[in-house]
Amino acid sequence: MVPDEVDLIANAIRDFALAGCALVCSTGGTGPAIRDVTPEAMMKVCDKVYDGFGELMRRRSLEEGVPTAILSRQLAASIGKTLVLNLPGKPNAIRTCLDAVFPAIPYCLDLLGGPSLQGSGRVQVFRPQAK
Amino acid sequence: MVPDEVDLIANAIRDFALAGCALVCSTGGTGPAIRDVTPEAMMKVCDKVYDGFGELMRRRSLEEGVPTAILSRQLAASIGKTLVLNLPGKPNAIRTCLDAVFPAIPYCLDLLGGPSLQGSGRVQVFRPQAK
Amino acid sequence: MVPDEVDLIANAIRDFALAGCALVCSTGGTGPAIRDVTPEAMMKVCDKVYDGFGELMRRRSLEEGVPTAILSRQLAASIGKTLVLNLPGKPNAIRTCLDAVFPAIPYCLDLLGGPSLQGSGRVQVFRPQAK
Repeated sequence: MVPDEVDLIANAIRDFALAGCALVCSTGGTGPAIRDVTPEAMMKVCDKVYDGFGELMRRRSLEEGVPTAILSRQLAASIGKTLVLNLPGKPNAIRTCLDAVFPAIPYCLDLLGGPSLQGSGRVQVFRPQAK
Repeated sequence: MVPDEVDLIANAIRDFALAGCALVCSTGGTGPAIRDVTPEAMMKVCDKVYDGFGELMRRRSLEEGVPTAILSRQLAASIGKTLVLNLPGKPNAIRTCLDAVFPAIPYCLDLLGGPSLQGSGRVQVFRPQAK
Repeated sequence: MVPDEVDLIANAIRDFALAGCALVCSTGGTGPAIRDVTPEAMMKVCDKVYDGFGELMRRRSLEEGVPTAILSRQLAASIGKTLVLNLPGKPNAIRTCLDAVFPAIPYCLDLLGGPSLQGSGRVQVFRPQAK
């Protein structure tokens, strides 16, 4: 648990990346409230932002009947070889969002130069064919 | 009415926010033309951007058969406790876009620390249940 | 062909714009890999970014059964009167993405002050009616 402060969150992300983590997931802190500063922390330390993650997570939440999904600034970004994924704060919403984007994560880690993840029956994993 | 100049628009937004407005709506100024600078003005004074608003407004316009909706840089952002919403310039498109995002606005103002809006029959309002 | 280096790509885009090109298309370089830096090059020289292009290209690719489309940072942006469109690297994906966004391009060039494109039977072109 890290308090809702930009520098503390940013440092935690950077520390995980420096420790060699391939995937760092955070939850919450993406809304309009003053204390919601996780995206700002991620922008501070990450190199690349993947807008497609936030788009898809918001769309799936909208499709599940949550119009306030558009208030979420959830995102994914990378720092070096580490993918950082910001998930919602509410357990139901975490499942919706993680299920939506997970199939793309193993291939993303491949491209970032990280370890190779394989899927089980429960979890779908997708890797495109060679060009 | 504010002329299409970044500083004039930015100052107008900040003045409304300083005056305590909970919601500031602007129309137009989001396209590719040189004089379309409303997003730039919003980025100059706002703290947080909510990509979900622009995504949903563009998607609804696309679904209504307007392929050029992807040219719109419409967005929502906040400055302090004030939500700033940039709508299209054309009346039909304003209705489409405002209907798309309005259900999320009262809860957004709650989170920003603003007044509590209630919906009537015409207008849908959504507030998620507690965690 | 330009090597995958930010400055070389940025210079190539600026040179095409200075030469008066109305539309510059690039392919590839939008993923998570270290050498994927085309979006960074575009951000370095372009004035305006049109998020709707990337959103729609990713959505169409997702609808075609490619969950890893969310890894793509494809985008469109403009520099002066020049529209710069970043397409995927794989031929099948190029067709999907170009077909998705092309109907909006002629009107975009109109608004940027460029030449007027007309469509043939193969290619859909859309221009909205006057306000």
